[in-house]
Amino acid sequence: MKNQDLFELFCNELQEMYNSENRIIEALPKLIKSASLSDLKEALKKHLHETENQLARLQKIFAEIDVTPVERPCTAIEGLINSAEEIIGNFKHSPTLDAAIICETQKVEHYEIASYGTLRSFAKYLNLRSDIVDLLQETLDEEAAADKKLTKIAEGSFFFNGVNKEAVAGNGAKTRKAS
Amino acid sequence: MKNQDLFELFCNELQEMYNSENRIIEALPKLIKSASLSDLKEALKKHLHETENQLARLQKIFAEIDVTPVERPCTAIEGLINSAEEIIGNFKHSPTLDAAIICETQKVEHYEIASYGTLRSFAKYLNLRSDIVDLLQETLDEEAAADKKLTKIAEGSFFFNGVNKEAVAGNGAKTRKAS
Repeated sequence: MKNQDLFELFCNELQEMYNSENRIIEALPKLIKSASLSDLKEALKKHLHETENQLARLQKIFAEIDVTPVERPCTAIEGLINSAEEIIGNFKHSPTLDAAIICETQKVEHYEIASYGTLRSFAKYLNLRSDIVDLLQETLDEEAAADKKLTKIAEGSFFFNGVNKEAVAGNGAKTRKAS
Repeated sequence: MKNQDLFELFCNELQEMYNSENRIIEALPKLIKSASLSDLKEALKKHLHETENQLARLQKIFAEIDVTPVERPCTAIEGLINSAEEIIGNFKHSPTLDAAIICETQKVEHYEIASYGTLRSFAKYLNLRSDIVDLLQETLDEEAAADKKLTKIAEGSFFFNGVNKEAVAGNGAKTRKAS
């Protein structure tokens, strides 16, 4: 394997994430506005702030490797955000909207976990400066924590507040068969 | 929260994954053909077989909840696959192609991990039959294992076979600054 090729792939991925973080910064305020649960609103606000820091970290990395910070349009994040907006639009007036927001946001988190995991590994294998690896690791850790926080909110805030009981008593029954 | 809304969101997600698994089944043979490393080829072939089983599991779940298995077109998987094809096309004649394939495939795995994690949780909270939860958990475990396997192949097969050394000696040097 030629390192120049791996470095080019690293740069491509970096540019895609630069595009992705910008798209996420645009998309998050709508989600914050749509969310009902205060815990969810707070978590999304915190994540918007983290995302702005993640963008700044990417700019630092671009500066360190002497590459212009260019956004590489990425159909993956575009598709993920379009899909999120569609689902959230479909559940606009539903009490399930918070669940839809969490579900779609976690898909984006996982896309970032995969991408930053790869970038961190590439940076290590390319023997780039350790602070570049550290910056990528910091973002990766934030993404993993944000994903866990959303799961915790989902479990603690609405699923365990009666949904199981309602499912037993309500229209969920028609979807079950005797086991 | 009304359960009917959460059940509708569950069905939406199920239909999106039904679409996604079909798109992945179409895309994987191209990746298998493009891969050079025998371990990677084998892992992707195994995952194609697993994906066919995952599709069959979704069909079982649709039957259990009395919902017609309809594909819900999903811009997220479309974007992820388009992005994968673009990157892989760009590195077609490069020895970094295997790294690009692993990188893009892991993004798809993580999309599935997020989606099946949500579906499994929704199925639990909706109090659906335990075999539905088990089917979703089985797919979730396969996806997590496939993701780990790809990381292992990346680390074991080419990154540790000289890339670090080459980076120290070769053109990777221009990307580093003294620490």
